[in-house]
Amino acid sequence: MRYAVIARILGLLMMLFSLTLLPPVAISLLYDDGQALAFLEGFLIVLVLGTLVWWPTRHNTMELRVRDGFLITSLFWIVLSLAGSVPFFLSSEPKMHYVDALFEAVSGLTTTGATVLTGLEELPKSILWYRQQLQWLGGIGIIVLAVAILPMLGIGGMQLYRAEVPGPVKDNKLTPRIAETAKALWYIYVGLTVACASAYWLAGMNLFDAVGHSFATVAIGGFSTYDASIGHFNSHAIELIGALFMFLSGVNFALHFMAWRQRNLWQYFRDPEFRFYASVMLGASLLTVGILIVTGTMDPVTAATKGLFQVLSIATTAGFSAEDFGAWPGILPVMLILMAFMGGCGNSTAGGMKAMRILLIYRQGSREIRRILHPSAVIPIKLGHRPVSERVLQAVWGFFSMYMVVFVVLLLINLAMGLDQVTAWTAVVATLTNLGPGLGQVASTFQSMPDLVKWSGMAAMILGRLEIFTLLVLFTPDFWRN
Amino acid sequence: MRYAVIARILGLLMMLFSLTLLPPVAISLLYDDGQALAFLEGFLIVLVLGTLVWWPTRHNTMELRVRDGFLITSLFWIVLSLAGSVPFFLSSEPKMHYVDALFEAVSGLTTTGATVLTGLEELPKSILWYRQQLQWLGGIGIIVLAVAILPMLGIGGMQLYRAEVPGPVKDNKLTPRIAETAKALWYIYVGLTVACASAYWLAGMNLFDAVGHSFATVAIGGFSTYDASIGHFNSHAIELIGALFMFLSGVNFALHFMAWRQRNLWQYFRDPEFRFYASVMLGASLLTVGILIVTGTMDPVTAATKGLFQVLSIATTAGFSAEDFGAWPGILPVMLILMAFMGGCGNSTAGGMKAMRILLIYRQGSREIRRILHPSAVIPIKLGHRPVSERVLQAVWGFFSMYMVVFVVLLLINLAMGLDQVTAWTAVVATLTNLGPGLGQVASTFQSMPDLVKWSGMAAMILGRLEIFTLLVLFTPDFWRN
Ligand SMILES: [K+]
Ligand SMILES: [K+]
Repeated sequence: MRYAVIARILGLLMMLFSLTLLPPVAISLLYDDGQALAFLEGFLIVLVLGTLVWWPTRHNTMELRVRDGFLITSLFWIVLSLAGSVPFFLSSEPKMHYVDALFEAVSGLTTTGATVLTGLEELPKSILWYRQQLQWLGGIGIIVLAVAILPMLGIGGMQLYRAEVPGPVKDNKLTPRIAETAKALWYIYVGLTVACASAYWLAGMNLFDAVGHSFATVAIGGFSTYDASIGHFNSHAIELIGALFMFLSGVNFALHFMAWRQRNLWQYFRDPEFRFYASVMLGASLLTVGILIVTGTMDPVTAATKGLFQVLSIATTAGFSAEDFGAWPGILPVMLILMAFMGGCGNSTAGGMKAMRILLIYRQGSREIRRILHPSAVIPIKLGHRPVSERVLQAVWGFFSMYMVVFVVLLLINLAMGLDQVTAWTAVVATLTNLGPGLGQVASTFQSMPDLVKWSGMAAMILGRLEIFTLLVLFTPDFWRN
Repeated sequence: MRYAVIARILGLLMMLFSLTLLPPVAISLLYDDGQALAFLEGFLIVLVLGTLVWWPTRHNTMELRVRDGFLITSLFWIVLSLAGSVPFFLSSEPKMHYVDALFEAVSGLTTTGATVLTGLEELPKSILWYRQQLQWLGGIGIIVLAVAILPMLGIGGMQLYRAEVPGPVKDNKLTPRIAETAKALWYIYVGLTVACASAYWLAGMNLFDAVGHSFATVAIGGFSTYDASIGHFNSHAIELIGALFMFLSGVNFALHFMAWRQRNLWQYFRDPEFRFYASVMLGASLLTVGILIVTGTMDPVTAATKGLFQVLSIATTAGFSAEDFGAWPGILPVMLILMAFMGGCGNSTAGGMKAMRILLIYRQGSREIRRILHPSAVIPIKLGHRPVSERVLQAVWGFFSMYMVVFVVLLLINLAMGLDQVTAWTAVVATLTNLGPGLGQVASTFQSMPDLVKWSGMAAMILGRLEIFTLLVLFTPDFWRN
């Protein structure tokens, strides 16, 4: 391991991150909410700590190797979460225990959006802004991670996306790719955010809410500045805008890049993952709206808006609420939560296992039926016109099995802490898929959960974001050998 | 499809099955319980129907081909369930609706052991005997299915077991294998039953209960003649005997055959699936007993007995109760139910996905971690010293993914019928894994469930027994194309 380079990068990262604590200072002063000092102290603490880490290693410019990528990627999220929790811990309002402060930071940066806070309306504006900003920063981190790093690490079939990344593929070195790719995607990310914020603002949100909610929408984060979430605005227009931008943010950003560079929307429909993702979202929306109408839960127009919004919100793992969908009839609550296991496309800000993997798993199940009838036939699994290598399929399966193992372990931890079954399993889904809300006791907040549930939730959020394996390999002796 | 041969075999099967309605006639007369006529009528109806099917096709002696195997195997269970339901429907006590009669027959023959009856103590002895006998017959059917037919059909990786089957492997023809294999396994099955019944009897059961419970134990069925199940006897000795024979019945019967032929217990420990199965059962038992003691749920001796019994009962998918384990603390109820997803070894009377598949899935997950660190290494998956072919691994994955799809579909059906989440998911596990009891509303009986839940439960029991694909391929257009 090249610890010195890793320290230099993490030090720089903290120094950079400390700068993001300055906008909340400005917001605090603007609204005179009394938290400016907390953010200023946080800024100084993180800056100084970052400098102390960076200074001794500043001349070390060795190239990172692929294996260093696992450690640095995991530490990236852990270190930023620790740094991000500082203002929550220092703020005079809300007063937060350290576990809660860290939970909120992890939840923000992993764009999970599970919260331990209630009474959001009463909180200082700077704290509210900071939460939204954490999600937005987490979102861009995820895009860079997904597009530039995970395919290099070869995690769970993400190699599939290698070919799609713009720019030349450098063999074994991480740095040039990150820089190059990040810039292109940064524009798309910022563009989506600006468009989303403008639309929210035109639809009637004030500027603060419009920007804040656009941050959480494009990052598929789900934090809101109101306890009632998007439902607070009670506006069909806002819900439709939210649905649109959640859908777009759940699309492979490399696809956005290609479509934009070639000025050709057809790029989207040529992509098998996009077609699958769009079909599943459309199908689930139609089913949900149908059930809401047939059961008389709401009038057709409301059902169409709320149904569409809520399906996209839960299935892309954004986790906003327009309604208490946990009280919806029949299959809807469980069906929506189960959809979070899929989430959006790879290389998006969405969580879950990703549409590509679910599509490949489904295709393998169907292939098995055909193979049983034609035992000697060779039936390749294709995406578009390209056959998918067995190596990638095995990686997808390996990922799926490990995801299930992690799910069961976390579920048993939650049950051991005395949670009821509904709360226990949805709390795992809410954190592991980076969805945010669950059902039962965690339908709106994790506040009342025992500390151990919060800790295991943090582990789940980071595991989910790092596609499990990135973090898990660090716990193998094999990783540290050599 | 060779319909004439299939008809001839199914006709013969019904004629044979009709004979099994005669022992209950004798029991009824012996105990003078008034149901003799119902069984006699049932005997005649099934015999006549069977003869009507058999007579026109009796001279057709064409060989069956592999593809016919799917249809005949599925029809085997469906036709026998229909025939088996006749006495339940005709009996004056209990009075059963047709759905209930069929549910009880399906549950018996698939050795699921979910029941729609309560007040078992008050029921006619002949009915009680008949239920136990259905399970015992189902058990021998499953062994023949698993050992002789499923490996030929190439279902979900069961090809692995082909090499182990005693006797020469005839290329593409089903009949000789069935006859040859059935005889060897029949002795083991009968031997286990006799040993189990004797042990129960010596431990204090009366002869009727001892034989009846040995039927349900060796078949991993779980029907009892008491509402309180094995708990009725309140005997440590009986529980330990039950645990031992459930464990033995969850072992690959081909392994019993080899160990017995070679008089060598070492055969068991050379088998990787057996080692995995035994380790999981041991680990889960130790954990369960530990939790029961630490939480003060019961005294150490009781905890050791009840814990061991209940783990083996649920994990092997027998489904007997010595205690209301749904009220056990912390993780235990959910952990035990989740263990039913594994069940026992392949080629046993146990349900679930089978230890072999879980072992292979786990090994693939671990391989993926090693592969991420060593991307160019070739890491075969081995069982014992034999590498497992990718084809078999893919079949296992195909099976697993289809099992999950079926699980989710059945879960949504149950939720749509208004069941609470705990009842809904455990009712699916209880039927799909052929376990029997669930938690919540289906902890002891399916009596109060809506008809649609009973129907979907029947589908689940048969799907589970037929390793899903055997039945599922019948619904593909490809199957019916020639
Ligand atoms: K989220
Ligand atoms: K059973």
